Amino acid sequence: MLQVQLSMRTLQKGVKRLHFNMKPKRIMRPDDANIAGNVHGGTILKMIEEAGAIISTRHCNSQSGEHCVAALARVERTDFLSPMCIGEVAHVSAEITYTSKHSVEVQVNVLSENILTGAKRVTNWATLWYVPLSLKNVDKVLEVPPIQYAWKELEEDGKKRYEEQKLERLVTKQRNGDIIFPVFNPEPYTVGYSQSSLIHLVGPSDCTLHGFVHGGVTMKLMDEVAGIVAARHCKTNIVTASVDAINFHEKIKKGCVITISGRMTFTSNKSMEIEVFVDADPFVDEPKERYRAVSAFFTYVSLSKEGKPVPVPQLVIETEDEKRRFEDGKGRYLQTKAKRQVQMQPLTQQ
Amino acid sequence: MLQVQLSMRTLQKGVKRLHFNMKPKRIMRPDDANIAGNVHGGTILKMIEEAGAIISTRHCNSQSGEHCVAALARVERTDFLSPMCIGEVAHVSAEITYTSKHSVEVQVNVLSENILTGAKRVTNWATLWYVPLSLKNVDKVLEVPPIQYAWKELEEDGKKRYEEQKLERLVTKQRNGDIIFPVFNPEPYTVGYSQSSLIHLVGPSDCTLHGFVHGGVTMKLMDEVAGIVAARHCKTNIVTASVDAINFHEKIKKGCVITISGRMTFTSNKSMEIEVFVDADPFVDEPKERYRAVSAFFTYVSLSKEGKPVPVPQLVIETEDEKRRFEDGKGRYLQTKAKRQVQMQPLTQQ
Amino acid sequence: MLQVQLSMRTLQKGVKRLHFNMKPKRIMRPDDANIAGNVHGGTILKMIEEAGAIISTRHCNSQSGEHCVAALARVERTDFLSPMCIGEVAHVSAEITYTSKHSVEVQVNVLSENILTGAKRVTNWATLWYVPLSLKNVDKVLEVPPIQYAWKELEEDGKKRYEEQKLERLVTKQRNGDIIFPVFNPEPYTVGYSQSSLIHLVGPSDCTLHGFVHGGVTMKLMDEVAGIVAARHCKTNIVTASVDAINFHEKIKKGCVITISGRMTFTSNKSMEIEVFVDADPFVDEPKERYRAVSAFFTYVSLSKEGKPVPVPQLVIETEDEKRRFEDGKGRYLQTKAKRQVQMQPLTQQ
Repeated sequence: MLQVQLSMRTLQKGVKRLHFNMKPKRIMRPDDANIAGNVHGGTILKMIEEAGAIISTRHCNSQSGEHCVAALARVERTDFLSPMCIGEVAHVSAEITYTSKHSVEVQVNVLSENILTGAKRVTNWATLWYVPLSLKNVDKVLEVPPIQYAWKELEEDGKKRYEEQKLERLVTKQRNGDIIFPVFNPEPYTVGYSQSSLIHLVGPSDCTLHGFVHGGVTMKLMDEVAGIVAARHCKTNIVTASVDAINFHEKIKKGCVITISGRMTFTSNKSMEIEVFVDADPFVDEPKERYRAVSAFFTYVSLSKEGKPVPVPQLVIETEDEKRRFEDGKGRYLQTKAKRQVQMQPLTQQ
Repeated sequence: MLQVQLSMRTLQKGVKRLHFNMKPKRIMRPDDANIAGNVHGGTILKMIEEAGAIISTRHCNSQSGEHCVAALARVERTDFLSPMCIGEVAHVSAEITYTSKHSVEVQVNVLSENILTGAKRVTNWATLWYVPLSLKNVDKVLEVPPIQYAWKELEEDGKKRYEEQKLERLVTKQRNGDIIFPVFNPEPYTVGYSQSSLIHLVGPSDCTLHGFVHGGVTMKLMDEVAGIVAARHCKTNIVTASVDAINFHEKIKKGCVITISGRMTFTSNKSMEIEVFVDADPFVDEPKERYRAVSAFFTYVSLSKEGKPVPVPQLVIETEDEKRRFEDGKGRYLQTKAKRQVQMQPLTQQ
Repeated sequence: MLQVQLSMRTLQKGVKRLHFNMKPKRIMRPDDANIAGNVHGGTILKMIEEAGAIISTRHCNSQSGEHCVAALARVERTDFLSPMCIGEVAHVSAEITYTSKHSVEVQVNVLSENILTGAKRVTNWATLWYVPLSLKNVDKVLEVPPIQYAWKELEEDGKKRYEEQKLERLVTKQRNGDIIFPVFNPEPYTVGYSQSSLIHLVGPSDCTLHGFVHGGVTMKLMDEVAGIVAARHCKTNIVTASVDAINFHEKIKKGCVITISGRMTFTSNKSMEIEVFVDADPFVDEPKERYRAVSAFFTYVSLSKEGKPVPVPQLVIETEDEKRRFEDGKGRYLQTKAKRQVQMQPLTQQ
């Protein structure tokens, strides 16, 4: 929570940014968007991750020593506050907000600007964690040069966030054994009715200098599958509302085939939660077995032709496992709702 | 067969080309190729189709009257004679070789040029059939302006090819009901072991002015799936050797989700045949059901690190249906082999 | 000036082209264009450069000896004579018009064809200079095989152009120290109000066989930034009208992060001049400092909804430096205007 408030303050009051500020920009093209003209959440996640990778790679190479590339380890929960449209300019700004011995926390903010009217809207705040891997030996994690903090509190808050995410990463590692089974002749609005999967052969442009898939490329594909699941379920124009924290437990290498599968886990009145798994199949020149590389929850909303959120068909539950996942999803939904209500109160009251 | 010999003659003897020649070129990039540096067959098919679409759209609009876009109806069997590599320049030349009342036959040839050594190799001859659809009403097929033939025989041969393909299109339309079922815990080298599917949300740049998917985009995705099936089966560097005739029975509209599925049907000593299906799901704004849009057979070979074809693991057959499909594949394989031996004889002996 | 007249003559009088003609073609897609459907100037510059790179690399390797890749050294001032639209086919033709000991001059022409109506328009004439770099040692410039000239005058004119551009290249090398500083709360129509920057991580498909960024990729990004500056200033549909000569002083390597920054320097009644800088940051694997790789001036016009040029808001000047740059821009504007008036006179009078 804190990093969000901080950023809002720095932005609002024009307080000097701490470190390594960088501001990429890009104009949104037709291929970045769905047929209603809304830019895919996955496209935005990919831009966010690219900005994070650049700033943290630059920071980790700022002291003399072994060269490295910063690899994405985790993205904190990210909300899509406002849709972005074709023709708008996306402004992505990144800064390093905390460094531990072996990891870097990057805060990335996205604004969309309508260059014709001059109107700007904040569309995302995101927090990402990177780890510097040696260019000579990708299994070796290097040390991160420490940053200077303007106030002591900033360092303390950063440390708290660092400990929290470390704990959560351990927990999600357990969950990863689950598999999505195909269903024959599914009934409408059941889990099997909308579940989808996609395979992708990793190409050179998907990869870092190391030959590992960029985290942003993976997230874009995950959003693509989640969006297809959501659209199959409600058959309307859908947009990404949020992505739960994503942990990147295992690197994916160039030449792999990756399978991205998604299934609906929960529906509220106006939102759908979709669980997405990424499995990597290092089938060429590798003795390694297929493994689960990433998993995450995406939340989508359904929009009317006028762009207003509309009710979604309720998910039809058929098995005990589906029921359990639905309840878990409901828990996440209610927790987020509660957090959001706190957040919406004026800053002075906190 | 006939059209290939014709082209070889025109090429070898420098006979004047007939009509509307056009020659697009493009340098091959890392994203066009697999990790061994071989350009994907699908990339080449996409270039071929783009050249065909341009020349036939131009021809069909060459007389005053209703404007139209030429839509791909069929691609004849296409061989990949020689692999193309990153950094080479692809030369694509297209000419119209026959016109019926409502369709255009286009012959497209591809040469790859190594601009460092100057070496050129023919990589493909392809024959495509296009149908002009009115821009005002996409369900209306317009009339094609007739071309002039240098010799009467050219027109007669063209008519024969036209009748043959018309018949074949009817036959394949029957086959289209088949579905690929998922398999749990498949044994190595069975059909279920390598079968794969991919979903793709059709975007604006995939489409013609009509808002229909370019045939070349569909073929590229089909080759991608077939390639993954082949690689999963033999776990080596694989390349497209040929594509059987492909019929485009149904148009695919912008905003559809398409599912491309592939399964292995036959293995010879050094080749694999993969059947690929394309299903379209017009799930937004459409009352229409999911439908089979295209199906085709791709043949792949496995290459050693030195680029030589190597033996492939034999397909393990488990069911009666698989056995039937294997025998059908064997039939196609033997027929092609026989045809090729005829083709290799000096032209003067025919 | 001269090369333009020459080309116009060869085209108009149907005089046989000299050497090494090549004609790539491509259909324009939604992603190539702005929301009004006009193809980005940067997309056209990228196609021009690809054609130039192919023809000059082929020529420089046409004699036995060390293999090389032709690297873009300079693009002469290029006008966009007529806008190109989505769905049109771009015809790009290139020929070598002069060779010095170590450089190649390529003339590239672009026509746009509406394949529905058959209408063709010339959209660009461009002149590019390439230098052959050894594949074994990129710092070694190889010798260029001489071309044959149809008339002696052609060689003499070429030599004059060669000397002129050589001199100009030296001059621009001085200018490159300038930096664009951010401005807080800028007033409308000031320089700070519209200035913009973009960062891009160089990927494999951006690069030549050497691992250096294609000149065309750089120019496309420069046009993207210049377009955002222009649109922010006048908030209408804008199109590239011309690009001043661009010199590529320093190569940019794979893995670099490049920052492209643009600021408005001059406005006439109906045009805007934008200065664009490209800085490369070889932040991984390299001890090298950030350096200025390219700089250039782009001119944009603002179009009404009917596609007619409309007046642009005048640039508000605030500092001495801005004033100096405005006067310099005015000088370039008047010089171009004067040249164009000479050019527009019938050829017979010259």
